[in-house]
Amino acid sequence: MDSLPTEIFNPLELDSFVGESHAVLDFLSDYYKDVESYPVQSQVIPGYLKKGCSDYAPDSPEHLEFILDDVRKNIIPGLTHWQSPNFFGYFQANASTAGFLGEMLCTGLNVVGFNWISSPATTELEIVVMDWMGQMLKLPQAFLFSGNGGGVIHGSTCEAILCTLAAARDKALKDIGEDKITKLVVYGSDQTHSALQKAAKLVGISPSNFRPIATSSSADFALSPNDVRMTMEQDLANGLFPLFLCATIGTTATGAVDPLMGLGLVARDYGVWLHVDAAYAGSACICPEFRPYLDGVELCDSISMNPHKWFLTNMDCCCLWLKDTRSLIESLSTNPEFLKNKASESNDVVDFKDWQIALSRRFRSIKLWVVIRRYGVANLRNHVRKDVELAKHFEGLLATDCRFEVVVPRKFALVGFHLKSNPSIYNDDVSKLNRKLLEAVNASGRAFMTHAVVEGTYMLRCAIGTTMTEERHIEGLWKLIQEKADLLALPNDD
Amino acid sequence: MDSLPTEIFNPLELDSFVGESHAVLDFLSDYYKDVESYPVQSQVIPGYLKKGCSDYAPDSPEHLEFILDDVRKNIIPGLTHWQSPNFFGYFQANASTAGFLGEMLCTGLNVVGFNWISSPATTELEIVVMDWMGQMLKLPQAFLFSGNGGGVIHGSTCEAILCTLAAARDKALKDIGEDKITKLVVYGSDQTHSALQKAAKLVGISPSNFRPIATSSSADFALSPNDVRMTMEQDLANGLFPLFLCATIGTTATGAVDPLMGLGLVARDYGVWLHVDAAYAGSACICPEFRPYLDGVELCDSISMNPHKWFLTNMDCCCLWLKDTRSLIESLSTNPEFLKNKASESNDVVDFKDWQIALSRRFRSIKLWVVIRRYGVANLRNHVRKDVELAKHFEGLLATDCRFEVVVPRKFALVGFHLKSNPSIYNDDVSKLNRKLLEAVNASGRAFMTHAVVEGTYMLRCAIGTTMTEERHIEGLWKLIQEKADLLALPNDD
Repeated sequence: MDSLPTEIFNPLELDSFVGESHAVLDFLSDYYKDVESYPVQSQVIPGYLKKGCSDYAPDSPEHLEFILDDVRKNIIPGLTHWQSPNFFGYFQANASTAGFLGEMLCTGLNVVGFNWISSPATTELEIVVMDWMGQMLKLPQAFLFSGNGGGVIHGSTCEAILCTLAAARDKALKDIGEDKITKLVVYGSDQTHSALQKAAKLVGISPSNFRPIATSSSADFALSPNDVRMTMEQDLANGLFPLFLCATIGTTATGAVDPLMGLGLVARDYGVWLHVDAAYAGSACICPEFRPYLDGVELCDSISMNPHKWFLTNMDCCCLWLKDTRSLIESLSTNPEFLKNKASESNDVVDFKDWQIALSRRFRSIKLWVVIRRYGVANLRNHVRKDVELAKHFEGLLATDCRFEVVVPRKFALVGFHLKSNPSIYNDDVSKLNRKLLEAVNASGRAFMTHAVVEGTYMLRCAIGTTMTEERHIEGLWKLIQEKADLLALPNDD
Repeated sequence: MDSLPTEIFNPLELDSFVGESHAVLDFLSDYYKDVESYPVQSQVIPGYLKKGCSDYAPDSPEHLEFILDDVRKNIIPGLTHWQSPNFFGYFQANASTAGFLGEMLCTGLNVVGFNWISSPATTELEIVVMDWMGQMLKLPQAFLFSGNGGGVIHGSTCEAILCTLAAARDKALKDIGEDKITKLVVYGSDQTHSALQKAAKLVGISPSNFRPIATSSSADFALSPNDVRMTMEQDLANGLFPLFLCATIGTTATGAVDPLMGLGLVARDYGVWLHVDAAYAGSACICPEFRPYLDGVELCDSISMNPHKWFLTNMDCCCLWLKDTRSLIESLSTNPEFLKNKASESNDVVDFKDWQIALSRRFRSIKLWVVIRRYGVANLRNHVRKDVELAKHFEGLLATDCRFEVVVPRKFALVGFHLKSNPSIYNDDVSKLNRKLLEAVNASGRAFMTHAVVEGTYMLRCAIGTTMTEERHIEGLWKLIQEKADLLALPNDD
């Protein structure tokens, strides 16, 4: 073997592995310490990074310090800081020490658990953890491996919905014939996450067969079972086949909750697959006081929630449970020769490749397992409760200033509010006014929120729940909002 | 705020973050040091883990040392060790220090870059890195952002194919009408990865419209452009619409290479989307001596490769480039109110949510960027070359023992071989014999390989290329194989 390069290149040399990892840990520790001082929303302009970057990959290795310096100087300013305690946009993405440790184990071990045999512990730990999570949510036994169902960890809700939709589709087409794919209809509300519409289109459901059923403030933006029923009746009358209904526990715009009991009865009557998207508020349902929002889940076919939002589990981690795992497996299974093995053929094992889109999969269950064990259920419940208390506190502050109002009753830790219309103070129409308010808050760099529009009403969304948010950050946010509202009222404001 | 829990729970307290992370690093460093001594293939039996696990999540927090001890005792024995230098199964999944550092940054910063505004640096760095990678592969300018195309990082090839298929499908259906979805046909070879068939089914292509065109040893298992042409002609004659063709650079079974130039001309003639799956061998194509395998890519529509295989990038990372990014975006875009922002409306920015299945996305580009910079292109090329040299060395060893033969000519670092049929030594038929050989090798725990069957011939696959594999591991593997072959020849063997 004369031709081996003479220079030794050892990308897993242990001293550098530990030493360089320590440097990155110090970097991250400094980042968490300083993140509060950074502008929450990045202030860069499009194309900013390209200018500071080489057009070509370097031929020679660079020192880590040099790379980290570049992260500090060029990457950090381009980040909107999701871990800032002053981040109140979208929904939070909780980072935590345990989530980080779990991800380190996943990344370091770097095993690929597509089927049982390729690394049995990855599959078996996922089974254990998914049953743990299911029990924490008090899911009916039928959703657990210890019942006749089961769960799997995906990367995102969109994947989870896509896979359940494919399972529902293939189950239906087996009965009515493959050429009927153009007749299948998918139902949600006008508050359902765009993931449903995207997944439906991806699995070949015509966009014209997607039904975003209208909701209203009078019903707190919950989907009406009766409206679903009427829509399905109409579709049936038009020769279409109702296939799939998605209910949401904690919608993106307002945190609304769809009534699972009522929707479950409709789904049963029409033989449609009922999925529950609890991406955001699922985490809250580990607390007894929030669990009633899941009542009726026993009538549903599948449910998903994202520990990477509010459950201290760093990205990515989405839990999906199903009763009818066989339909999922039938739809998603492949059996190429190179993966054939005795364990799979024995049917004694779970091969998670047949529960998801991709073949390859990361050892995400060890991350969730470390989070649950390192923190314990009691702390995880308190984590949710703390954020809900902070949201109540924020509501209380809003109530002290008559210029503001809460737009939608709060259920979890998301508060939707706006400046009320008041021609004696503001020239702008109420939507423009609130858009300006949000822009002013975000441009300050001191906090970051996002918006929603419901029934034509523009509102600011204050999604409370980053890992490091404390009462003082809520107070600071409120001060900032009032300050910017004052400025908007200046007479020379256009 | 009287109701806040009195006990302080701080999941990002900096001393524990650093201290506990150090403990995990020490754990992983020990793991890498010891991994060679573990049985490569896990020896556990189905259900082994459940016995050692609590049925319920713990209510109270547990110490990290206790959790790591559990990993040591209960998880490690259940792993098949993909990072063992004696792992030669499937295709390798390279871990490296730089890959780990990059993943730590991704996980620690924990930003969600679904659109430009949600964290501009994540998008802009992905643009830079995808152009770097594209240039390393000498992709035509039309695939780069600096041309009129672009690239995106997905988690897996299956996702990449699913998205390009959806783009091709929607582009076609716009012309021929949505109800023609049942007429669309997808083409690959009988060597194409099962990801294609799965993705086709997922996007609603009937399994009966999937064409795995036969290949043969006489053509080194490459897909024949002429056979594709004939199959398409037949489909057209039957009123079907050829939609999508997938070519592979480095097939899973044998490392075969489909001829892009010839297939590109066919694709052009029939107006089908031609995707190149270079998941495995794409990494090799950064070396000038392997780049000719990509000749003809200029005639293709999209190409994907997995840095998480052979490019020192810990799971997960799949690069996808396209010329016609507009079709992809049209197929995958959503525009919910809560994501509307001035930057997106200006069309000056890339919103990667419209280039993939999910909305949420991790900061994977920083991982690939750290790998490229920390190692440099020259080392990355040498990393590939070292493994190819080791594969040649292994071939040389096989040639010294007339009981063995290489089944398919080697192109990269995958060697397919078997014991030849020899009734004077073995009672078993050749397939059974080689199955026994593989089982004996894997049961020893000293090495791990997997198998393939081509043209009815069972062969062992020796995929060389874990990060820590050196010449001595190849020598050890060869000794082990010979030893087990000797035992199979015992007269009393059944």
